[in-house]
Amino acid sequence: MKKSIGKEMPLYPAPVSVIASYDKSDRANVMTASWVGICCSEPPCIQVSIRKSRHTHDSILIHQAFTINIPSSKYIAETDFFGISSGSRCDKFTESGLHAQKAPNVEAPLVEEFPISIECELLDTLNLGSHVMFIGRVVNTLVSEECLDEKNKIIPEKISPFCIAPGNGDYFALGEKIGKAYSDGNKFMKRKI
Amino acid sequence: MKKSIGKEMPLYPAPVSVIASYDKSDRANVMTASWVGICCSEPPCIQVSIRKSRHTHDSILIHQAFTINIPSSKYIAETDFFGISSGSRCDKFTESGLHAQKAPNVEAPLVEEFPISIECELLDTLNLGSHVMFIGRVVNTLVSEECLDEKNKIIPEKISPFCIAPGNGDYFALGEKIGKAYSDGNKFMKRKI
Repeated sequence: MKKSIGKEMPLYPAPVSVIASYDKSDRANVMTASWVGICCSEPPCIQVSIRKSRHTHDSILIHQAFTINIPSSKYIAETDFFGISSGSRCDKFTESGLHAQKAPNVEAPLVEEFPISIECELLDTLNLGSHVMFIGRVVNTLVSEECLDEKNKIIPEKISPFCIAPGNGDYFALGEKIGKAYSDGNKFMKRKI
Repeated sequence: MKKSIGKEMPLYPAPVSVIASYDKSDRANVMTASWVGICCSEPPCIQVSIRKSRHTHDSILIHQAFTINIPSSKYIAETDFFGISSGSRCDKFTESGLHAQKAPNVEAPLVEEFPISIECELLDTLNLGSHVMFIGRVVNTLVSEECLDEKNKIIPEKISPFCIAPGNGDYFALGEKIGKAYSDGNKFMKRKI
């Protein structure tokens, strides 16, 4: 039996990403975001939704670009710090000891220590209420060499990403590999459909 | 050192959700979607991006509603089947043995066996290219009683959700709890910021 619990959004599990941008003074800043998701394959687009009050909100509008950085679980405390502090009041890179680096293709920084950085150009914005959705068109992705196989494919376990249970706040590690997409469902295929 | 790998979207890890809707004949149908993400807190909204060719695309437009269902990992094969088959050619509920049930608040079905069903009314659509983004306003969420604590809060481990490595296709279980949001980052707080 299911029970109604109101307007909750337990989209389990949600990714934990770090959005990097330059502010109006061209200072590199970061914020943690889980209100994110892939939203188109061609062109490749990812949406990142941000409260209007966040320092990052104006920064993205000014530079029309941002990067989405995927932290490894060893940087869980730094990542959480990026979410609870404000770039208008401190330099998050200095405080955390992590390093910003200019992204090669967009007017935004990336987090050097994180294994994945996705470079995005701002394609569109949508004001939804508490949050503004920034739709980024992916122009390039950078991955730490040690997380790639010989064919330049990402080895997910080497990224060691973590995720969050929205509404609960628990961070979880990636668990065991338990299946394969476009394959496990074949057992229900009676005929070619 | 990081290496450019092109326009990839390794937003690790991405949730695996099942979108349920009624089609033009009022038949319950489901499709698996990972191009999803929370996009606003107030009003609570989730975006689901779907190829125009999918049966679900038209169904949502007709009924202006859908549910987002979070499968447990024990239904990994059924969930994968919902992604590789088409509702225009088969009845996915019949073929998989799972059951549809009318959602209490919107014109859409839900998947009875899955622990979470989020009821959404269509708020807006955005044509991005290969995919159309459907923005759903959450009107209610239903959770299996055995996954709730005595305060009606979800126990993430009891949901036993799984996730996918986009671009790779591996399904992963939820791993261990390794941290707490709005807390782990405090160690970098020099002052109240």
